[in-house]
Amino acid sequence: MNNSPDLNLPDYCAQVARQAREASRGLASLIGHTKNQWLERSAAAIQERTAEILAENQLDLQAAPKFGLTEAAIDRLRLTPSRIEAIRDGLLQIAMLPNPIGAVIDSAVRPNGLRIDKVRVPLGVVFFIYESRPNVTADAAAICVKSGNAVILRGGKEAAHSNAAIARILGEVAAQCGLPPHAVQLVATPDRAAVGHFLKLNQWIDVAIPRGGEALIRRVCAEAAMPVIKHFDGNCHVYIDRSADIEMAESITINAKCQRLGVCNAAESLLVHAEIAPRILPRLAALLTRQGIEIRGDDRTIQLVSGARKADEDDYRREFLGPIISCKVVDSLAEAIAHINEYGSGHTDAIITQELAAAEQFTAQVDSAAVMVNASTRFNDGAEFGLGAEIGISTDKFHARGPCGLNELASYKYIVHGSGQIRS
Amino acid sequence: MNNSPDLNLPDYCAQVARQAREASRGLASLIGHTKNQWLERSAAAIQERTAEILAENQLDLQAAPKFGLTEAAIDRLRLTPSRIEAIRDGLLQIAMLPNPIGAVIDSAVRPNGLRIDKVRVPLGVVFFIYESRPNVTADAAAICVKSGNAVILRGGKEAAHSNAAIARILGEVAAQCGLPPHAVQLVATPDRAAVGHFLKLNQWIDVAIPRGGEALIRRVCAEAAMPVIKHFDGNCHVYIDRSADIEMAESITINAKCQRLGVCNAAESLLVHAEIAPRILPRLAALLTRQGIEIRGDDRTIQLVSGARKADEDDYRREFLGPIISCKVVDSLAEAIAHINEYGSGHTDAIITQELAAAEQFTAQVDSAAVMVNASTRFNDGAEFGLGAEIGISTDKFHARGPCGLNELASYKYIVHGSGQIRS
Repeated sequence: MNNSPDLNLPDYCAQVARQAREASRGLASLIGHTKNQWLERSAAAIQERTAEILAENQLDLQAAPKFGLTEAAIDRLRLTPSRIEAIRDGLLQIAMLPNPIGAVIDSAVRPNGLRIDKVRVPLGVVFFIYESRPNVTADAAAICVKSGNAVILRGGKEAAHSNAAIARILGEVAAQCGLPPHAVQLVATPDRAAVGHFLKLNQWIDVAIPRGGEALIRRVCAEAAMPVIKHFDGNCHVYIDRSADIEMAESITINAKCQRLGVCNAAESLLVHAEIAPRILPRLAALLTRQGIEIRGDDRTIQLVSGARKADEDDYRREFLGPIISCKVVDSLAEAIAHINEYGSGHTDAIITQELAAAEQFTAQVDSAAVMVNASTRFNDGAEFGLGAEIGISTDKFHARGPCGLNELASYKYIVHGSGQIRS
Repeated sequence: MNNSPDLNLPDYCAQVARQAREASRGLASLIGHTKNQWLERSAAAIQERTAEILAENQLDLQAAPKFGLTEAAIDRLRLTPSRIEAIRDGLLQIAMLPNPIGAVIDSAVRPNGLRIDKVRVPLGVVFFIYESRPNVTADAAAICVKSGNAVILRGGKEAAHSNAAIARILGEVAAQCGLPPHAVQLVATPDRAAVGHFLKLNQWIDVAIPRGGEALIRRVCAEAAMPVIKHFDGNCHVYIDRSADIEMAESITINAKCQRLGVCNAAESLLVHAEIAPRILPRLAALLTRQGIEIRGDDRTIQLVSGARKADEDDYRREFLGPIISCKVVDSLAEAIAHINEYGSGHTDAIITQELAAAEQFTAQVDSAAVMVNASTRFNDGAEFGLGAEIGISTDKFHARGPCGLNELASYKYIVHGSGQIRS
């Protein structure tokens, strides 16, 4: 269809979306066994057809310079036999998760005898927009279908051949396993305008999920007529309370900041209570510096840390995603909480403390998706939380907050059983 | 502030929204007792100050002709001592509901010892836009504050004096009970442009809830930068399956259609299986006609029902909210389900059947907020479902579906307790 010279883009997008809606009706009542069979057979097929996928990936790699991809982006694009095994393993893991759909999640019998069951159902149709990693094609399709949703996948043009190969395999296995046609569709045109068309089709698409850079996410939020599950930045804080265990504070701060620099749940800002700052900040700063981290602090930080640079207002708002941390000495727990709620992004924030009351105040008042007590911010993650698989980490409060697994791609309906009840 | 000749509308709206955000921080950690005290004392004050409220309501009633209100609208606007007692009772009922906030709704201990608690928290700030009934001012404020949210109330201009009197009483009692200032704010300007300004302030407002006619809801959905909990139409169906008990089918259909004509969960369309149609449709149509209901049907309906008018395509899509019902004879359960999913509005649909498999297929495949088996559609309602209070019935699937009570005005956060865990 992408090769047709007279492809009418709005018609094409409408057709894809309508087909997805149609598929979603069938997917909603598939039993778990059918979905798992598709996942397991797809896993096997992905591995068996490694050569085919690698050949298509090669075409993308050859075209990469044309798209001006950086070395890092080319590395993300590259598939290898072991990366294909990881795709296979991801599918098998999702097969092993319990089927979320159809479960009664709440139930009550009313005085008139009506039984009101609240039952988990799929959202319906997911429009998933992502950038260069081809493995996301398999991941996203698996999570959406396991949760009973049809999915429209829109990958980056730089991974078009790899994505198409993976989607083709998933689609062929889907047909063999009796999934409804069009349960998984990959958008066949590279035209950027297609995204805009899909984002208006809220009569058929229930949710849009962008995964990629901030520009992509802002565009999707601005244009989407349907709800968006989105992830803005992760300006995560570690707050070292006056009663913190010093070794624990050091170990958690180093882990939160340094274990992986470029991820959303890495710490970007350090707050230290004034009473403990003289005992911990010089040591901790030395450890951070040894890891290559630059410290940007307020005046009191600079007094305690030789070599720290003065932080400006903007530094406290930034998600560095690199070897820089902002730092501030605060006079109270309340000041730390107010700072986090003002400057943070509501993603993940941690307190290191030995005081029960401090832990309770911090967890109650910090308005973030995940609030950690004496643990690294790096644990805010679907796998670490035990969700089994995640399609992203939401920084919203509406519908889904934090890691989004299978349940977060679901809605519910009320099923009411009566025996002739009428309302008086 | 509304009397100031130099009120700067964008500044005013921003100030109200910022104040609400500030209040929401305090509200989130209020204990249930404080919120209940406010509700109980407000209930008492509302009744004690009946004369004051009635005097203000009189001003609205005097101005009503100026706004071109119909008799029905004037009746909705009118307060009486017994209607004020109903407002009081509503507040007391909400006081008696359990505090939804702070409860652990899910919990897991991970292999590394981290305890992941999923805790219910408020959404934050609710912008509530409603039309003429002044009792909604108290109702909405009570539901929002009980669920820990700050609320910005935007009532209709025709009820301005009544709403202001009720909001003033709630605010005075809030100050006495130690609620944060600005927990409940009534928008002080009648300027219609204020709504547009508020709908852009998604940095401070977490959700917009319009309650009123379709034009209002469409405007809010089109302009809102924040999520909207919305209620579009209720084109509800009763499907009489071939195995239905005839008396039950009659009693439920009459109740669903006739018990109250102008409500969203009233039946607007009747589907009858061809095998049972000759035995039930003539009798049922006579009962409906006796209640003053006009029947618009397909050819097979017209053959069976003397006096039935031919339905056009549009009749099957309409929410009549009045004494008309559309009717169709179908050849199968599958046809009924397909018709409902195509023409219905996803609100409430009922099957009357004695067959287990039919009930299961219908409840699994009809994609509506509430699906009833052998019960009237009129039961889709917060009170009937046992939610205690509702702020509306959502026709969305995202976040909240069906009746929205206290829990539906909430989000959650993850609170993670560790003992120094770091990620490896």
